[in-house]
Amino acid sequence: MKKELNEINILIDLLAKLPGLGPVSSRRVVLHLLKTGNRSRLNDIATAMIRASENVQTCVDCGNYCSAHKCSICLSPQRSSSEICIVQDVSDLWAVERAGAYQGRYHILGGVLSMLDHIGPDELRIPELLKRVRRDATQEVILALGATVDGQTTAHYIAEQLTGQNVRVTTLGQGVPMGGELEILDGGTITAAMRSRREY
Amino acid sequence: MKKELNEINILIDLLAKLPGLGPVSSRRVVLHLLKTGNRSRLNDIATAMIRASENVQTCVDCGNYCSAHKCSICLSPQRSSSEICIVQDVSDLWAVERAGAYQGRYHILGGVLSMLDHIGPDELRIPELLKRVRRDATQEVILALGATVDGQTTAHYIAEQLTGQNVRVTTLGQGVPMGGELEILDGGTITAAMRSRREY
Repeated sequence: MKKELNEINILIDLLAKLPGLGPVSSRRVVLHLLKTGNRSRLNDIATAMIRASENVQTCVDCGNYCSAHKCSICLSPQRSSSEICIVQDVSDLWAVERAGAYQGRYHILGGVLSMLDHIGPDELRIPELLKRVRRDATQEVILALGATVDGQTTAHYIAEQLTGQNVRVTTLGQGVPMGGELEILDGGTITAAMRSRREY
Repeated sequence: MKKELNEINILIDLLAKLPGLGPVSSRRVVLHLLKTGNRSRLNDIATAMIRASENVQTCVDCGNYCSAHKCSICLSPQRSSSEICIVQDVSDLWAVERAGAYQGRYHILGGVLSMLDHIGPDELRIPELLKRVRRDATQEVILALGATVDGQTTAHYIAEQLTGQNVRVTTLGQGVPMGGELEILDGGTITAAMRSRREY
């Protein structure tokens, strides 16, 4: 059976390696797509994948995905070029965009510094960031990196590189998340929230 | 941004409709595939999907997926043609095959009878089954359908259709699953296990 169903098994193995999927979910997805009524969707997805693979580029300035040389955020005259929000990945940029509270530009690092994974400043888009800050005379750099050890190490490294460059370096406020219950929050978050308490 | 990233959004929307995925997992998968190192995988998956869509057929006898007119199980001389195991979907056939405890053939219904979803015998491959049993003078039909109301209704319906046809109709044994703890088992299963108790 293995040999005969080669086409199915190749597809299952490929999908099983995607994040969040495994052999069981992958099997379920493939069987779903092979059902008589769903065959056209199999072709639709394949076409969409080829189109994305051919057309999606990386913005030369910020590293966002786009279909041209620069992304729409970097090209938009409505977006302030004096602020740059530093994020780890495109998914973080999307998250900030969904919140709709930021009108400046972005810079995507493509990861965070990590001793364990041998990721140094040159593996990330840090040199590009420093050049960009100098070129555009940026006024504020917002460090929107994860509150992990590697994220904070990266934030610290970038802040150090920017000292003496006449640019304000800020970081996201920390505290109790919206809808967050104190009961289930970790001590670090509560400590941060306590430190950044304000008048009611 | 929405307009510019059309290629990405189309792909995310398509994948978000797959079973077990939603908008969040779909976004994660697409961002993963768009990363520089993974672009080739995007093409590999697209190619595998097109190949599967073009080559995977349905066995005329049992309804299993195959790359020819009949599947390898129906063609194999090692598989007894006197026994037919009735399953709901191809995923169930795969589960029985993985167990390796069955050497007969299969018949895939493609669903179960359901009043709510307007699925009657003609929407399933029940007429084909009855023809096949007559044609091959099948000796045993094993009803390996789920222990749900619809599954058992379907099993009952098929058993009724086969009465008077000189074919033995059996169903899978019910009881405590391997590694199952009594504490977390439902009453129905314990009752079934009690009824089918045997000498130690």
